[in-house]
Amino acid sequence: MGDPCGIGPEVTLKTVADESLSGAARIVVLGDEQHLRRTARELKLKWAFSSVVDEVPQGRRWERPVLIDMRNVDPGLLPGQISALAGKAAAQCIERATELALAGQVEGIVTAPLHKEALSMAGYTDPGHTEMLARLTSSKKTAMLFWSEELSVSPLTTHLSLREAVAKVRRSRVLAQLRVLDREWTRFFGKKPRIGVAALNPHGGEGSRFGVEEQRDLLPALERARNLGLRVYGPTPADAIFGQARSGQYDVVLTMYHDQATIPVKLLCGLKAVNVTLGLPFVRTSVDHGTAMDIAGKGLASEESMVTATRLAAQLARGPA
Amino acid sequence: MGDPCGIGPEVTLKTVADESLSGAARIVVLGDEQHLRRTARELKLKWAFSSVVDEVPQGRRWERPVLIDMRNVDPGLLPGQISALAGKAAAQCIERATELALAGQVEGIVTAPLHKEALSMAGYTDPGHTEMLARLTSSKKTAMLFWSEELSVSPLTTHLSLREAVAKVRRSRVLAQLRVLDREWTRFFGKKPRIGVAALNPHGGEGSRFGVEEQRDLLPALERARNLGLRVYGPTPADAIFGQARSGQYDVVLTMYHDQATIPVKLLCGLKAVNVTLGLPFVRTSVDHGTAMDIAGKGLASEESMVTATRLAAQLARGPA
Repeated sequence: MGDPCGIGPEVTLKTVADESLSGAARIVVLGDEQHLRRTARELKLKWAFSSVVDEVPQGRRWERPVLIDMRNVDPGLLPGQISALAGKAAAQCIERATELALAGQVEGIVTAPLHKEALSMAGYTDPGHTEMLARLTSSKKTAMLFWSEELSVSPLTTHLSLREAVAKVRRSRVLAQLRVLDREWTRFFGKKPRIGVAALNPHGGEGSRFGVEEQRDLLPALERARNLGLRVYGPTPADAIFGQARSGQYDVVLTMYHDQATIPVKLLCGLKAVNVTLGLPFVRTSVDHGTAMDIAGKGLASEESMVTATRLAAQLARGPA
Repeated sequence: MGDPCGIGPEVTLKTVADESLSGAARIVVLGDEQHLRRTARELKLKWAFSSVVDEVPQGRRWERPVLIDMRNVDPGLLPGQISALAGKAAAQCIERATELALAGQVEGIVTAPLHKEALSMAGYTDPGHTEMLARLTSSKKTAMLFWSEELSVSPLTTHLSLREAVAKVRRSRVLAQLRVLDREWTRFFGKKPRIGVAALNPHGGEGSRFGVEEQRDLLPALERARNLGLRVYGPTPADAIFGQARSGQYDVVLTMYHDQATIPVKLLCGLKAVNVTLGLPFVRTSVDHGTAMDIAGKGLASEESMVTATRLAAQLARGPA
């Protein structure tokens, strides 16, 4: 359900009511029943849950979405608030979801947006979902993937200052991420990806004239990856690679920092992009937007990203056809 | 004409032959006659010059393009070569053009691509056109602007490693560039621009959690700019600001580094973007592509960017209607 004060509850309710998902996935929502009922009432949204339960129903008969009531949202919380109570409620949903996934009771997790400041106020030091999930599952090497039909991109680092992100562009990290991308893409989609690698520096550094990372780290990492049998291409200047990817030259682009991935993804795919975490023991997708506190509680939020994220999670959980 | 071994001669000939420009600008090309004639012959391009001259024709009667023969291209040079001789020939065209512009004999300069490595081999330390023009005109503060109907973007720095570019994100530099943008945009387009300012760090730094530059440098620079009467907005996360700009929220976006400008510009505008240098004593536009050595001499190059650059230069030279 995400942060109760953001648009998470609203898009969750709208997604649960989306008939197009009923054949694709059996949905278990982790959230606070009273809070969701109030949201549905105030925004005049359909209540599409078949039941409110404490545990994931066993057996294969249930098809309609169910709600596990977390009973953890303070009724005094209002839309748009940034609060420790809200951050804690959101984090507890993630923790419970992780337990269920590790126990095999669910095959994947779809996350609604949480607010990083609220999370921090609640005492969590994880900068975001992805890091929290990696911690909870003791996953050594995860990778964020923005997936869409038009363009798929994976940034080398995520929630770091650009200064720190630049310092992380090192041979071993690039190689490790290429291997995760190759392994997980093959697992989920059933074929080896062609991976385009974006350069860090303008014009790809122009032969070390504008930066050394391409020569020092990227070229050796790519050569090593090729020797391991990976299909990797680059490094290619960042202002050229996304046009190439869009025209089908690569299946996925590895970028050197967060915004190098999200600028093209947001421009080309908008709400159609899904954030996938690779390297976890289970499937995890996320909406590709934040809590949007400014429009929370107004009924204006689009569920498109969460519907797409849910559909992709179901597809990844089924595995390649 | 640009680097003789790149696509510069080809796109120059095609631009000169473009009838749509004849009413818009009186064109003087600086290039090597023998080299251009050979290019025209080999690629079967029209020779559209009305005459070959040594000086810019005076008086207002001539309308068709003329060529000033620089007599500086070695006939042994071949398409696709990266050579000191070629770099030198290209640089001499720029030097001569600058002299003509400073003397008021031309009102603006349109530059074809040069090859930075060839330029460097020829002993020029300027990383590109823009820096060379700033040096030749002793211009203190220039700014690069990528202009198109759909999106206009100006990067704070250009040909620097990303590591160095990050270190240049300082209050005084941001304020200086905002002032140049405001002044020159007003001069050329006749109205004060609404300037959106992109954040440096992911999610705009999230209140200093991922980087300090937004709080330390950008917010104070924007506040000072507002006090000076500028219409500035931000800092806004880089993965959100270009969508806002495209929908008309700003006239121009100030980005914190080169690729933050060129990734969205190339994706949204392709060859329609024109590179304008602000802060010079004359108008200067440039094609928004490189020498494309891989397709030089093949007749495959599109003149669209140079035609657009020429038309914009003429418009800027006329000034606001």
